[in-house]
Formats: sequence, C-alpha cells, structure tokens
Amino acid sequence: MAEGSDDIQALIAAMARLPGLGPRSARRLVLSLLARNSGQMSQLATLMAKVASTAQPCARCNNLSDREICAICADPARATGEICVVEDVADLWALERGRAFRGRYHVLGGTLSALDDVGPADLGIPRLLSRIEDEAVTEVILALNATIEGQTTAHYIADALPEALTVTGLAQGVPIGGELDYLDDGTITAALRARRRF
Amino acid sequence: MAEGSDDIQALIAAMARLPGLGPRSARRLVLSLLARNSGQMSQLATLMAKVASTAQPCARCNNLSDREICAICADPARATGEICVVEDVADLWALERGRAFRGRYHVLGGTLSALDDVGPADLGIPRLLSRIEDEAVTEVILALNATIEGQTTAHYIADALPEALTVTGLAQGVPIGGELDYLDDGTITAALRARRRF
Ligand SMILES: [Zn+2]
Ligand SMILES: [Zn+2]
Repeated sequence: MAEGSDDIQALIAAMARLPGLGPRSARRLVLSLLARNSGQMSQLATLMAKVASTAQPCARCNNLSDREICAICADPARATGEICVVEDVADLWALERGRAFRGRYHVLGGTLSALDDVGPADLGIPRLLSRIEDEAVTEVILALNATIEGQTTAHYIADALPEALTVTGLAQGVPIGGELDYLDDGTITAALRARRRF
Repeated sequence: MAEGSDDIQALIAAMARLPGLGPRSARRLVLSLLARNSGQMSQLATLMAKVASTAQPCARCNNLSDREICAICADPARATGEICVVEDVADLWALERGRAFRGRYHVLGGTLSALDDVGPADLGIPRLLSRIEDEAVTEVILALNATIEGQTTAHYIADALPEALTVTGLAQGVPIGGELDYLDDGTITAALRARRRF
C-alpha cells in the first residue's frame, strides 16, 4: 500500500483512467485536493454526486441538462426555425461560447458506424425528422466534424431531410489567426476553392 | 447557462482550478464521466467522499493515511533506525515506488520560509527530534529537493540533529538514462565533482 490507503489507491487508479490524465497527474490531483485540510476533496465529491444525480439528456435535443427539456429547447426566443446538428455536447458548448447561433440544436451523440453498429436510430435521427415538423424548422445546419465519419453522417442526414428544407454546412477555410504554414493541405485546398473577393 | 446546468458549470469551474487542468480539460472530464449513463461520475464522487472523510496525516510521520498511525510507522519491520526526511507525500510515494528504502519517513509538508512565515514547528521538526530518541534512530537521510529552499531546510535540520547521528543526503548526479545534452549545468557540474572510478 504505497499510497496511503486502499481507498486513496483506488481513487488514484480511477482518476488515472480518465481522458487526459495518467498516474502522475492523478496522484498530483489527489494530493492537491487533500492538501492543508482544505475540504476541497469533499466539496468536489458533493458537487459531483449532485451532478451525477441530476444530469440527463434533453428529451428533445439530447443536450446535457438537469431537467427533461433543456434550457435552450425551453426558451421560446430560440424557436428561430433553425436546428444545428452536432456530434456531441462538447460541440454544442463550443458553439454556445461563440454566441453566433441563436436557434436550437440536435445532439447526435456520435456518428454512423457500421463497424460499431451505430445506426440512425442510435443517433436520434428519426427524432430529428419529427422535430422538423413539430418545431416548424426551415433550416438545418449540419455542424459535424470535418472527418470522414462526420461528413458521411452529414450526407446521410441531408438525404433524409425533406426536400423543401434549407440544409447548410459550416464554411471550411483558414481558422482565424491560423498560419498557412501550420495548416494541413486539405484545409488550404478547401480554403482556396472557397475563396472570396475582398 | 451555456453548459447544461448551474451545477455542471460549477463542477467544470472547480475542476478547471485544479493543478494541471484548465477549462478545456475540465469540460472533457465532466462529459466523459457523464457519458453513456455509465455511473462513472457517481462512483468517483462516492470514492472521493470516502477518501475525504478518512484521509488524515500520520500522527508520527505526517504521511497521508486513513488511520492515526500510518502503515509504514505501524510496521515493526520498518523500524530499521533510519528516517528519510522528505518535503511532501508525493516524494514519499516516489521513494516507495523505488522500493529501495525500507526504513521510515518524516514528511515536512514544505520548506522553511521566512517570507511565508513557515518555521520549524510548522514542518514538524521538533517532532522529528523527539522521534530520534523514541525510535532509536541512527541515520537520518535528508531527501529534500535540490532547490535553494530544500537545501536551506536540509542544512537547518542537519544542524538541529544530535551530533552522534549519521546524517546523509541523496547523491547528486546524472539521472539514469539522462543525456548530458539535456541536463542543466548545475547537475553536470555536481556529477563531475562527485565523479567515481569505473
Ligand atoms: Zn434540448
Ligand atoms: Zn507514519
């Protein structure tokens, strides 16, 4: 029992398995949380227990929420007739931080994958189709990752949507502040093809 | 409320303040813990609450433990007459992983600092002195960091210890696998001065 107690060792092992952490950072975190009898460890435990017991996917858009319908779906000001389809909640958060989109979302929770047996129903695509009518949607923005899986899923959804709907995707190009030197060739090519007049 | 709920935002903010984490990794951790209704978040919360309620400093050596006297101090096989003095629990863990030292420890919990008002009593140095007699100690190994603060504290302790005692420090030199090119000049100089015959 090199690390204080069985529980402390179990906690370090559990933390070390989290994405982006490892044994070394897990040990540092545990010692920091226990340092100087600060009560930080127990405060964080309480907060995590509360989140664990209340967090749930929004029944409409699959966004992470603490109630059945998330704050965005419940806000009438966001009934703009636009739905932005994203792969996961982290993407929704990223778009919300940008404050550019004022409509609603649909969180797929992944991409279509024959290999991993992920079909349209697993991604809530039938539910998206029924939302088009229910919420008088006029535009669907497919904000999926610019990966093969993301774009395959985007094409599948575009084909499944009613003809009358406007379907758009995010513009591809050079990121703000991006140096051409550091971009991959695909991005440069896409940005060149989509070039615009000054 | 961009991130799901007030509690989720508070949790992300609390995690983002931990050493080595930031907003981005805190968001990733929270989403990963909540992913796929795995119950990971509540399991981790339970484990942290348990550790928070049982973790305490060893009354003898200040090691992190779940009882009054830690497993190392309670183990008669480790009454070798040697005490290894370290700055913090992370250093004790590092030495235990090496499995080279079979004696006991004394964890200072920091270094002497006039600026931060940290004196000998704050570091348990009087308690270390009383342990010398109580535990029939013959050697004290000062395994403090090779920093100015660590070495100042080591010199203070060495001066305070009884004359008859053997007082040693860790050897300084090139780390195993270390490339000279990447070492700082002080380490190379120290290794050269302490050079040994092949
Ligand atoms: Zn929603
Ligand atoms: Zn102890």
